[in-house]
Amino acid sequence: MPAICRRCRSKPAEVRLPYARMSLCPDCFRRYFEDRIRRTVEEFKMFKSQDTVGVAVSGGKDSAALLHGLRQAFPGLKLVALHVDLGIKKYSEHCLEKVRALTRGLEVELHVFDLKRELGFSIDDFRLTPYRRKICAPCGTIKRHLFDELAREAGVKVLATGHNLDDVVGTMLTTFLAGDWSQLVRLKPVLPPLSPLQTRKVKPLLRSPEWEDLLYAAYSDLPFRDIGCPHAGGTRVRRNQELLEALSRRNPAFRHQTLNNFLRLIPILEKHVDQPPLTTCRRCGYPSSAEVCAYCRRVELVKNTLEKRRQRSKLNPLLRGINRDQANDI
Amino acid sequence: MPAICRRCRSKPAEVRLPYARMSLCPDCFRRYFEDRIRRTVEEFKMFKSQDTVGVAVSGGKDSAALLHGLRQAFPGLKLVALHVDLGIKKYSEHCLEKVRALTRGLEVELHVFDLKRELGFSIDDFRLTPYRRKICAPCGTIKRHLFDELAREAGVKVLATGHNLDDVVGTMLTTFLAGDWSQLVRLKPVLPPLSPLQTRKVKPLLRSPEWEDLLYAAYSDLPFRDIGCPHAGGTRVRRNQELLEALSRRNPAFRHQTLNNFLRLIPILEKHVDQPPLTTCRRCGYPSSAEVCAYCRRVELVKNTLEKRRQRSKLNPLLRGINRDQANDI
Repeated sequence: MPAICRRCRSKPAEVRLPYARMSLCPDCFRRYFEDRIRRTVEEFKMFKSQDTVGVAVSGGKDSAALLHGLRQAFPGLKLVALHVDLGIKKYSEHCLEKVRALTRGLEVELHVFDLKRELGFSIDDFRLTPYRRKICAPCGTIKRHLFDELAREAGVKVLATGHNLDDVVGTMLTTFLAGDWSQLVRLKPVLPPLSPLQTRKVKPLLRSPEWEDLLYAAYSDLPFRDIGCPHAGGTRVRRNQELLEALSRRNPAFRHQTLNNFLRLIPILEKHVDQPPLTTCRRCGYPSSAEVCAYCRRVELVKNTLEKRRQRSKLNPLLRGINRDQANDI
Repeated sequence: MPAICRRCRSKPAEVRLPYARMSLCPDCFRRYFEDRIRRTVEEFKMFKSQDTVGVAVSGGKDSAALLHGLRQAFPGLKLVALHVDLGIKKYSEHCLEKVRALTRGLEVELHVFDLKRELGFSIDDFRLTPYRRKICAPCGTIKRHLFDELAREAGVKVLATGHNLDDVVGTMLTTFLAGDWSQLVRLKPVLPPLSPLQTRKVKPLLRSPEWEDLLYAAYSDLPFRDIGCPHAGGTRVRRNQELLEALSRRNPAFRHQTLNNFLRLIPILEKHVDQPPLTTCRRCGYPSSAEVCAYCRRVELVKNTLEKRRQRSKLNPLLRGINRDQANDI
């Protein structure tokens, strides 16, 4: 005999929430998920109901659940979806398709930044740089910057991202264990802008386990990507997830408790951590700890690499021609 | 061809220290181990050279390495060994034998507290109480109290314990992850006494990995126990060790880095954590957060349990007698 939903006491339960010792039917689970988004937004005063909120959508389950969840939790809120087309072969086209279907279905305005068209390179091109198999690092830097630009163009002051409980706790734990406190304090649920060029960043899914984002997106029939990024397999991220899994197996509430611990710790550390002094990037004008910011340096690196390659490939036919002529001489 | 010792450049290396990327011969390893003890004692100002230092010896490798290491690192220092005979069947006799051999060999005065003789119960008797398979908890409480008593009787103001790097980091990490900050700040390398009845507690092996304590004790031909405590298999402690192993496999310096992080964190947390208000135990007079301290409550529990059992076993023959008489009646 199947268990009965703990909330409605009528339909069969399908979702087990071990940390809450509760089983819910799909409909009640969706309400529960949306209530949690609303409570999280209110708890951290992420935005006001009259704000226009930009939502960074990637094509994945988390940002799909975020966009739909925010719409349900705050029916009157003005939402704008922002997407960066990273130009990753096959993958990015698939993601953009899902994003278009999602925003069309929810009737949300979509702004897309096309990396290849606007800047002349794709994330794939980092394979030619020394980043080779560690592409997640420059990709993150570039996305963070471009979402700020997209948000500014779209006129939104708040940018919501789909970071889930597993993402946040995993990053907090790794950053803490690495002793990088100045980075740790930047992981707070609301990150105010450091300059007028930046947006206030908020994480309404902070308390939503990754698995529940997936369930919510599936139960809500949201379109989301079903292929993985070819550059992922990111060693550190994946290893963190394994560590979290191991710790959560012993204690189903581990992630929730650890998040609360860090949320308690961060304001204390903030008073004691010296943030690196910030200056203004002389290329893009964004806040930076160096003369040229990480974004501009990554862009320059990949553009220079592509340029050198182009010049070499222009020379190659000439060189091959010379060789052929020499061969003919023999 | 075997590697050559990095220090003396003459003898074959036998000990690999992956976190330091260094291989040493046994003699140089022992010097290295003793130097680290000396530096640790000085770094945290654990004691002065004219102090008499009590060393808690259990019969195990860590406290054996500690006693011998302190003797070598501070040749003029007055040392007194303190041991609690826990009355654990077979195990405690074996430990006491090793402790006697160790202190005899090092010509160090030994004070023993015999739990069974002095208090009328053994740690084994906790099996009859609700602690059953979680005997490590009351055993720890009782040992901590009795080492304070032993130290006072022996006239020592500083008590050194053999907690190694793995112990300390494992406990720090678990305590931190459990969000128990008031307990975390008590894990600092020097714990001052809260009352004149208590001793200053210091951990000179704080920076010594467990594995190196074992090697040092073995290379120094120290007697130490070769059987395990029958009550161990302590779930939490063992699981912590597994977690540490997993994290260290990825980064050989993980434990060292994590220790340094916590040593940096603890003074900050100390200012923000409210320690539970302390009163004086009305039985033993030691500092306590309750009217009767944890030690006195554990002792009372086990004594009451034993007393009830004794009374029941006095009654049993009578009851059996009655049953026999009834049987005869039929």
